[in-house]
Amino acid sequence: MVRLLSKQDVNELLNMADALEYVEEAYKQLSLGNAIVPQRIAISDPAPGLTLIMPGLIGGKMSALATKIVSVYKENPTKHNMPTVLAKIMVQDMETGDIIGIMDGSLITAMRTGAATGVGVKYLARKNSKTMGIYSAGVQAKKQVVGVYWALNQKLEKCKVYDLNKSVAESFKEELEKELGINVEITDSGDNLLVDTDILVAATTSTTPLFSGDKIPEGMHISSIGAHAATARELDSTTIKRAALRVAGLKEACLAEAGDYIIPIDEGIISENDIISIGDIITGKKHGRESENDITVFKSVGISAQDVAVAKLVYDRALTNNIGQDVDF
Amino acid sequence: MVRLLSKQDVNELLNMADALEYVEEAYKQLSLGNAIVPQRIAISDPAPGLTLIMPGLIGGKMSALATKIVSVYKENPTKHNMPTVLAKIMVQDMETGDIIGIMDGSLITAMRTGAATGVGVKYLARKNSKTMGIYSAGVQAKKQVVGVYWALNQKLEKCKVYDLNKSVAESFKEELEKELGINVEITDSGDNLLVDTDILVAATTSTTPLFSGDKIPEGMHISSIGAHAATARELDSTTIKRAALRVAGLKEACLAEAGDYIIPIDEGIISENDIISIGDIITGKKHGRESENDITVFKSVGISAQDVAVAKLVYDRALTNNIGQDVDF
Repeated sequence: MVRLLSKQDVNELLNMADALEYVEEAYKQLSLGNAIVPQRIAISDPAPGLTLIMPGLIGGKMSALATKIVSVYKENPTKHNMPTVLAKIMVQDMETGDIIGIMDGSLITAMRTGAATGVGVKYLARKNSKTMGIYSAGVQAKKQVVGVYWALNQKLEKCKVYDLNKSVAESFKEELEKELGINVEITDSGDNLLVDTDILVAATTSTTPLFSGDKIPEGMHISSIGAHAATARELDSTTIKRAALRVAGLKEACLAEAGDYIIPIDEGIISENDIISIGDIITGKKHGRESENDITVFKSVGISAQDVAVAKLVYDRALTNNIGQDVDF
Repeated sequence: MVRLLSKQDVNELLNMADALEYVEEAYKQLSLGNAIVPQRIAISDPAPGLTLIMPGLIGGKMSALATKIVSVYKENPTKHNMPTVLAKIMVQDMETGDIIGIMDGSLITAMRTGAATGVGVKYLARKNSKTMGIYSAGVQAKKQVVGVYWALNQKLEKCKVYDLNKSVAESFKEELEKELGINVEITDSGDNLLVDTDILVAATTSTTPLFSGDKIPEGMHISSIGAHAATARELDSTTIKRAALRVAGLKEACLAEAGDYIIPIDEGIISENDIISIGDIITGKKHGRESENDITVFKSVGISAQDVAVAKLVYDRALTNNIGQDVDF
């Protein structure tokens, strides 16, 4: 019997507070050596888009085994009236190997990415943070703000947003003000995001730095979730140089895919040893923020453990709440 | 909308003659550079079994993109009253990336493995072959014989079988005699399989050679589908040395996983250049059997392209014949 869960089912079952807890646990188990995150497989040409296959396992009490298949087809909206990103997650019973749940993965992808930023905020931002700025009002952006909001125990008061597309920024503002009850300010300059903000989130498709690191105020926490190729980055070398902590969702994944760290390493500005996995801070192997003046950076590229953890959460909730449909096939 | 297909649906839609054609096409497209077969991902500890994640793409007119998730849990039968091998295949629309079909993959795995042996027989066995022997009457064995039967255009007359488990051998005999109308003889010695047979199939879980290569009669074609680790093999070095043709389902996969070839290469008995992909024979880049006296060897380890091809076949047939259930999720 396989439990099938639609995007609507997932939406009903999943909230950010829980996603934060599960993603934090995934990072913790990675640090403890209880999780397996194989290098993801990418398939593109001759297909007109990219498919990523991301299996993973988390041991310990979570005991989760799942694979996400996510496709990124940029021409889908114009050519097929379909979303660019499509995803499904297959959850296995770790005791038998049987696939017991299949669920839409698009909302889970956005939520676990927001939760990753949230976990970074919890351990790296100043405790009294109340304001943030975000580059881009795009598909990932809303859940980024929701992640920050819950990581700050709902103390977030204001979010500045910068996006070239004004109507996207307007709907971002409207939805978030309604959902979170915070003040959202649309700004017409990226650099404005660096003024009177405690936390900065970069969630763009840019492959080159968004701002000069010289302009970052002391004490700011920066989370970058956009670029995920060795030659692409949202943050410049000055930002990385000035940071007191350069943290990764998973160090090995960032050293393979995150130009934000790879380029400054190649330039000799920092070394691989300067990069810390967030899990090592969660488990206390490494220290977190030490001063109110520290600039802290959290860079995450998507890793399967995030999806696996949140998919397991959703599956378990679906059984408890009797949501979704069971199909025998 | 996703078309879900059970094992019964797949059984209704799939026959060996079609599987042979599609697996041959997959090997051909691999030779032409129109297929992508990433190294499969394996996940085991701390799970009590093995999961393999096998995505692949076949271009050309087949235009197929799919991922198989297959698990091998040896304690399933005794502990959970479930099969050892469980599998599902997710078929994507190559034009949009969307997952449009999900089907049981256990029968497809057996069928495509039988079809691989069949394609080997078609290109490498003597044209007048009428008899075969098979080591093991286990889970893969029946479809191996069915593959040989159809590859010989139903001219197979007799199959000798050797299996330590007599009741398994008896049911193998009963089922195949009924299904194919051939004579099945149970033998009590593995070496008997080498006498008065044209084709030999090794389909065991053995990790050491099953017989001495000195005993192989001239002109025999040998297909090995069992061992799939660099240190495991069903065929000894003498067999490989005596062979006029050492063919692989996919050369790169065998050089990574097939001890049957890796060990004799390490021993200096043959070199990597002596291994040929079957696709290169299908496309005419390399020659096949040249003499009635040649001993030919076909070694295949499972590659995703086989699953992708057969899954696409099953999916297309399901739409045409209106079989399976459509679920929106």
